[in-house]
Amino acid sequence: MNAQVARVGSPFGLHRVVEPAGVLPQQAHRLDPDPEPYADEVVIDVDRLNLDAASYRQLREQHGTGDAVRAAVLGIVAERGKMQNPVTGSGGMLLGTVAAVGPDSPLALEVGDRVATLVSLTLTPLRITDGLADWDGLSEQVPCRGTAVLFGRSIAAVLPNDLPDGIALSVMDVCGAPALTDRVVREAGVGASVLVLGGGGKSGSLSLAAARRAGATRVVALVPTDAEADAVRSAGLADEVVVADARDPLAVHAAIGTPVDVTVVCVDVPGCEHGAIMATADGGTVVFFSMATSFPAAALGAEGLAADVRMLVGNGYVPGHAAFALDLLRAEPGVRALFAARETQ
Amino acid sequence: MNAQVARVGSPFGLHRVVEPAGVLPQQAHRLDPDPEPYADEVVIDVDRLNLDAASYRQLREQHGTGDAVRAAVLGIVAERGKMQNPVTGSGGMLLGTVAAVGPDSPLALEVGDRVATLVSLTLTPLRITDGLADWDGLSEQVPCRGTAVLFGRSIAAVLPNDLPDGIALSVMDVCGAPALTDRVVREAGVGASVLVLGGGGKSGSLSLAAARRAGATRVVALVPTDAEADAVRSAGLADEVVVADARDPLAVHAAIGTPVDVTVVCVDVPGCEHGAIMATADGGTVVFFSMATSFPAAALGAEGLAADVRMLVGNGYVPGHAAFALDLLRAEPGVRALFAARETQ
Repeated sequence: MNAQVARVGSPFGLHRVVEPAGVLPQQAHRLDPDPEPYADEVVIDVDRLNLDAASYRQLREQHGTGDAVRAAVLGIVAERGKMQNPVTGSGGMLLGTVAAVGPDSPLALEVGDRVATLVSLTLTPLRITDGLADWDGLSEQVPCRGTAVLFGRSIAAVLPNDLPDGIALSVMDVCGAPALTDRVVREAGVGASVLVLGGGGKSGSLSLAAARRAGATRVVALVPTDAEADAVRSAGLADEVVVADARDPLAVHAAIGTPVDVTVVCVDVPGCEHGAIMATADGGTVVFFSMATSFPAAALGAEGLAADVRMLVGNGYVPGHAAFALDLLRAEPGVRALFAARETQ
Repeated sequence: MNAQVARVGSPFGLHRVVEPAGVLPQQAHRLDPDPEPYADEVVIDVDRLNLDAASYRQLREQHGTGDAVRAAVLGIVAERGKMQNPVTGSGGMLLGTVAAVGPDSPLALEVGDRVATLVSLTLTPLRITDGLADWDGLSEQVPCRGTAVLFGRSIAAVLPNDLPDGIALSVMDVCGAPALTDRVVREAGVGASVLVLGGGGKSGSLSLAAARRAGATRVVALVPTDAEADAVRSAGLADEVVVADARDPLAVHAAIGTPVDVTVVCVDVPGCEHGAIMATADGGTVVFFSMATSFPAAALGAEGLAADVRMLVGNGYVPGHAAFALDLLRAEPGVRALFAARETQ
């Protein structure tokens, strides 16, 4: 491209909104995915999409077969110019290679850099050019050819050379969880007790490792099955591993015993709010990372249980979150083992 | 009743759940509203219901006329044994007189006490006996005859003698907001700047007063109309009053200017998440009190804007919240003026 004539856009990507006018890209129904960068934009040649777990689960439940799921994703992206599940409202992230950099981009990326986007697909202009021919629809990781656009105020991380792309992408997709867990557990003070609901998953295992590194002395993982409990025990990431249905507050309450100072919710199914609240001591904190969290269920649940707990909406952005999560993966063989097991499932 | 034969229940009210079995009362589809207390329960003769603002708004939008709204509320309570709006998931609170106290109740109430319940109607067993004959369906405050049940771990406040019931009830209904605002603003430190979206409403005006009392030196109210701006200016609760649509993040961003340390969302309409996030400085806090808040919109909004803000789910329970809010009303003529104006609208 000729940088001399690059169009000037908004750092929030307002110029990419097609309809309705005057909203932010994430709220838009349709974005313009034109792969010609504005002055502060970066264009990516896409290799792979990583769909949000709640989104992928919903697509599988609605559409059933892999072919039908693939058709659904293609339909959403064709209609909306972005991959935002209309039911869950969530997206995911992507991996690719920098193809073009506008002259005013603040992201410090160069053409040829292998990157992962750390802003949601729900606001990322996306065009798919291969019909997702290489994807069987049976995994949330989607091989994909196409282009995507990053705005001035986007976030992208250059992929590490020492880790397989798939694992790096999986880590970056959930890297907000361990970073915020680290912050909250440090605020709670040395010796805090921490419960992770869904401790065997990606964000869950990273959060367990982050909690221990932040000084927690009682780290409890709650998982849904005995098999997952065995995996987490083998990984050595928790002091206690308990099996219970996170959606059943009475079962969670019974399994945990003494309430904890910090509860981190990493279970991507609805209905885990009350269990998390009942497991948390008065004065403690619940961090909700699941996109399946219901705001009213959390707010009214705490009130209804007369629970003086602080409840945080898990923000996917914490400065330095990608590097922090990748370091955890490198330093903790247990985390790496759980990620590797999920990759090959 | 004969206390010798009172049945023993669960402090969480599990024994009142009719269907589905094994869930907490708030998650239940139907509760048993039988006005015979279990050993740790209290039964209330109901005078008035105060519907949650988001719930009442939805009922009005769906049903239109006052008669239709009244019929809808009667239908919900008859079917569910509680007043939980099936669309919004929210409830409200009630006012009444203690009719019976089980021998093991920990609530320290006595027969004849005039009380307001501070747990949500979404989990309070309720029976209506007058067909809501005295309610025109045109206000969220509902004159009502019937009975309600409080569990061992419920919260109720004895009504003050020095304030009209309607105003006390309105204050108690939103008393979690000023109490949590107080806590968050004190954590932010002396001289914090605070924005209240919906500063002219009930929770909003109390939150403005709480912010200033907690040491905030820049208190900004954002309201939707010039008329409301005039009312808030007259009340003297804010240093700045700005008019903008809280659902329009770009308009909010422009109206606020320099981002604030703490943003409190008291606007009971969907779509205020992005504006709140964009108005808040990095390192700041957003407190969401509106039941219309979308969890994914908040979580993904912060990520998409690369905003390092802490986001709190507004917990309706903070110890001492009712007394704190009533004291604010007594001490702040501006708050009282705004409440009185709403009562007579």
